[in-house]
Amino acid sequence: MHAKPTCFIEQPLLSDALQAEVTVASEAFQWTGSFKFRAAYNVAAHVPNRHILTASSGNFGQALAYACRLVGKTCTVVMPSSSASVKIAAVRSYGGQVDLIDTNAVSRAERVAELAHAMPEAYVASAYDDPLVIEGNASLGKEIAQSGRHFDAVIAPIGGGGLCAGLITGLRASGSAIPVIGAEPLLGNDAARSLREGRIVRNEREPDTIADGARTVSLGVHNWAVIERGIAAVVEVPEDAIRAAVRLLFDRANVKAEPTGALAVAALLTAPERFRSARVCCVVSGGNVENRLYASLIA
Amino acid sequence: MHAKPTCFIEQPLLSDALQAEVTVASEAFQWTGSFKFRAAYNVAAHVPNRHILTASSGNFGQALAYACRLVGKTCTVVMPSSSASVKIAAVRSYGGQVDLIDTNAVSRAERVAELAHAMPEAYVASAYDDPLVIEGNASLGKEIAQSGRHFDAVIAPIGGGGLCAGLITGLRASGSAIPVIGAEPLLGNDAARSLREGRIVRNEREPDTIADGARTVSLGVHNWAVIERGIAAVVEVPEDAIRAAVRLLFDRANVKAEPTGALAVAALLTAPERFRSARVCCVVSGGNVENRLYASLIA
Repeated sequence: MHAKPTCFIEQPLLSDALQAEVTVASEAFQWTGSFKFRAAYNVAAHVPNRHILTASSGNFGQALAYACRLVGKTCTVVMPSSSASVKIAAVRSYGGQVDLIDTNAVSRAERVAELAHAMPEAYVASAYDDPLVIEGNASLGKEIAQSGRHFDAVIAPIGGGGLCAGLITGLRASGSAIPVIGAEPLLGNDAARSLREGRIVRNEREPDTIADGARTVSLGVHNWAVIERGIAAVVEVPEDAIRAAVRLLFDRANVKAEPTGALAVAALLTAPERFRSARVCCVVSGGNVENRLYASLIA
Repeated sequence: MHAKPTCFIEQPLLSDALQAEVTVASEAFQWTGSFKFRAAYNVAAHVPNRHILTASSGNFGQALAYACRLVGKTCTVVMPSSSASVKIAAVRSYGGQVDLIDTNAVSRAERVAELAHAMPEAYVASAYDDPLVIEGNASLGKEIAQSGRHFDAVIAPIGGGGLCAGLITGLRASGSAIPVIGAEPLLGNDAARSLREGRIVRNEREPDTIADGARTVSLGVHNWAVIERGIAAVVEVPEDAIRAAVRLLFDRANVKAEPTGALAVAALLTAPERFRSARVCCVVSGGNVENRLYASLIA
């Protein structure tokens, strides 16, 4: 069992609103509801270890738990005890072991190191910085290249950079030169600054953006190697545009996007002149969002 | 330009919750956001008339307006002046002419008859009772038959019966004998009563169900001819199950369904023992729903 093909969505009302020819590539229907399954499955299927260890309060944990179940492996997911109970329950329902920590007492990295020491046979998986992650996400780039659609640009969220690095890798492997553009929360614009400075720049802390999938401190080093040469640009997106994009996708295209998933459409709202009348593929990276937050965004 | 292929969605968390192997066939990404485009396009493309006239406060009006634009025709959509402004705006944005009526002063049927008299060259299109509607909706049955998936049953909303009649027609034309089951609001259970009595039974008035796409007084006569012989059963669904199904699709599968679109999943909630462990295709007929109502359903 591999990744599900992405779901391409076009609606004239969405394109009208964005003044561009927009195709959404929604990963909200990917196994476990986000593109993270592509990487998680690639990791679970290809490392020799029978047990995998990771830290994730978000989509990677769920994706890894389900991927491990599919390939007959086990995993431990370190999560803050303050995580939403629905997310903890999801990891468990896929068969993952949850290790809850009090982040005031111990950092996630410290706890992963502790567990790795106790389980030397386990593979420690990064949610975004691993060649296997890039390779897994490259499958989406290949699907876009082989979709029979013609795009002037592919826009995707950028946090740790695993998705953009995968898209660039997959598109180029399929012979496509379509520019890939990252959509990054302005509140955590380390990728944009990294490109400007020509080196990995780190945020001082996890940025407090509504796009929780992009609350990363910096790009991964494997991703940076691909992105530095391969990305066309990064659009820095204000929080208001993220909120507006979630609602626009709901109103105009019946797409449920989590805030991180709406970043690409938010980039169109942020820089409309750049994309006017262009044929744009907006990657919606996932749809997993708390009900209360979502209700407030669409109301 | 024809109908978009339906979007097949599987999620283990949804199947777990419903204790069945569930595949959603979502028409929320069909052109204009509902399966109605399949019929509307078939009507617009195949009648010789250059102008089409219909009454619809819901999805058929939008679908017909867009279909007419695609084939270079024009249409008039009679709508109550009390319709949601967003629906009126949608019809207009697709190029449809909107004829607003005060339903206290004149019924939709009376106004359509008036306009038909004034425009003798126009084709008067029924949203659900026309052989061209059945033929258009049959395309979805063919897609399900040819999807490579194996189902024990296909469940779909039933209001006027155009969707179920189309599914039966399309499946059988593709050589598939999969049973088709209608999911009907208990508040307007004329289809279930019609099957029991062996004749078309009418509701006394438009049923006051949250599933506004199923607020029909009776099955169409063309649909009845197909459904009487071809449908396996009708499940009568209480309003609470419809609300729960909208939320379940949101929570477990990232699917935005309008209440009518959630009827098939609501049928699984209503009669779980009937479908336990079965491989079931639930047709989500559309995703167009008011933000405020939707927010209240998921909160």
